[in-house]
Amino acid sequence: MQFTAAVVGLGNIGRYAIEALEAGTDCTCIGVVRRKESIGTDTLKLRGLPEFASIEELEAAAGRPDVLILCSPSRQIPGVAGEMLAKGYNTVDSFDIHDRIVETLNALNEQAVKGNAVCISAAGWDPGTDSVMRALFEAMVPVGTTFTNFGRGRSMGHSVAARAIAGVADATSITIPIGGGRHSRLVYVVLEEGACFEDVKKAIQEDPYFSHDPLEVRQVSMEELPRVADASHGVLMERVGASGKTDNQHLNFDMRINNPALTAQVLVSCARASVRMAAEGKRGAFTLIDVPPVQLLPGERMTNIGRLV
Amino acid sequence: MQFTAAVVGLGNIGRYAIEALEAGTDCTCIGVVRRKESIGTDTLKLRGLPEFASIEELEAAAGRPDVLILCSPSRQIPGVAGEMLAKGYNTVDSFDIHDRIVETLNALNEQAVKGNAVCISAAGWDPGTDSVMRALFEAMVPVGTTFTNFGRGRSMGHSVAARAIAGVADATSITIPIGGGRHSRLVYVVLEEGACFEDVKKAIQEDPYFSHDPLEVRQVSMEELPRVADASHGVLMERVGASGKTDNQHLNFDMRINNPALTAQVLVSCARASVRMAAEGKRGAFTLIDVPPVQLLPGERMTNIGRLV
Repeated sequence: MQFTAAVVGLGNIGRYAIEALEAGTDCTCIGVVRRKESIGTDTLKLRGLPEFASIEELEAAAGRPDVLILCSPSRQIPGVAGEMLAKGYNTVDSFDIHDRIVETLNALNEQAVKGNAVCISAAGWDPGTDSVMRALFEAMVPVGTTFTNFGRGRSMGHSVAARAIAGVADATSITIPIGGGRHSRLVYVVLEEGACFEDVKKAIQEDPYFSHDPLEVRQVSMEELPRVADASHGVLMERVGASGKTDNQHLNFDMRINNPALTAQVLVSCARASVRMAAEGKRGAFTLIDVPPVQLLPGERMTNIGRLV
Repeated sequence: MQFTAAVVGLGNIGRYAIEALEAGTDCTCIGVVRRKESIGTDTLKLRGLPEFASIEELEAAAGRPDVLILCSPSRQIPGVAGEMLAKGYNTVDSFDIHDRIVETLNALNEQAVKGNAVCISAAGWDPGTDSVMRALFEAMVPVGTTFTNFGRGRSMGHSVAARAIAGVADATSITIPIGGGRHSRLVYVVLEEGACFEDVKKAIQEDPYFSHDPLEVRQVSMEELPRVADASHGVLMERVGASGKTDNQHLNFDMRINNPALTAQVLVSCARASVRMAAEGKRGAFTLIDVPPVQLLPGERMTNIGRLV
């Protein structure tokens, strides 16, 4: 199966999604949808692709894509995805606000059914492939505790959330694992002129993205920020428990990755799955734990079974 | 959803499958099918369950189970599963002869369609949950190499294969990882009276289960064998490669487990999924990489999405 995709949003993830589509053997990116005011800026990231201010303009110029890869900030995803699904486009997104996933999925499901389309939401690495690990770990070891230890690494979601705080000109948030699935946050902030550091710090502390964890906020200059804002990240997922009545079963998943590159790759793999699911007649909004893993991969099912099972 | 199961075969895996069904909150084991000549032996393993010499006798006495958990030796699985599927029973098995999985799946698919049933085959940990890991790792990091390093631990499939060699009274085979996804095998054999050790060693070396790896065969007495035949096992799966055009992505899965307990637990989780897939109208033979992970777990889909995604 070959498929076409359009990328919506040209931030950090959008840029890597274009590369992942270029690297894929069964997919083609036919264009990028961006905010009107961004058109013509940062064009190197487009890697030669045409850019458009709306999906309608893209479709008129480049044809209808099989799937849209939504790379807008998480807080905009429910709106953007709902709109595109209602218009009949299959969509994938890496919406990452964990405690709003169920309500978002229910809302997107309604739009997807209305638009006769397939949505795979929350499809990055956490939520996303880590969610598959957690499900699989429970299927293998039903009794026990899973710890998901993130980092050390920069959280894109938390960085965006910090940047949205009044008085913050720019920010980057580092997640530091402190064991047992708990984390502290180290937030580097560049203040807007005239902003008060103590006010900004308090606002970050009260933001739902940060209010549950130990927090340190450090003020840096705009020149210093890029020197702490690398994209390295990782996770150590640990589960110890019982299979049936047999204890002492140990499962560990450890990964060290470029964060937006992995997120974008998972989006592209899910884009492939969404096109397959749509072709099978499925409609609605799904997460990665709803997707048969073989549908994420290029190539024929039986060939992949022979290679991987 | 609640479901009922019957266990077919009361070897090592069958015994643990009974325990896993007993530990499950949404499932009931209604009986065990055994070879006629075994009825009445080793009854402690039954944990109070009734035993029968055929599925027909079980059904007449205990009702029709939603799914059969096939715990016969791998080499008997294609026959047993085919027969049960043609009779209309959903089945799960942990068939583990990797290079015969595709042909077996095709044959079982035909029987399952004929019988209007669902089969999940090759559903242990390797093949099985490791297969899901390999698929997921490729979806995350499409370019690179995955090494699956087994052990140190006793391979049930290899032990059964060694026991089938002429002149072998009993045997246990230990898998030792030697790096890069390669392994050596250490086989402890108890000889039948009059058997020649060199002949047995040669026959093991030529068996397709052993012919590809470095091999050591050690002769032990029937009294010594149980002291080397523990059920500890594990795997270290490693993948390094590129997501899109970004290299240096590192994924590792490491588990240390009681081998038959995990295999049996995976079978029970797949039994649950097979009943769900049958209820959705699916028919045919599948592997674990065809199964949406959420279907492996007890409880409602949206509750599990809220908990795990």
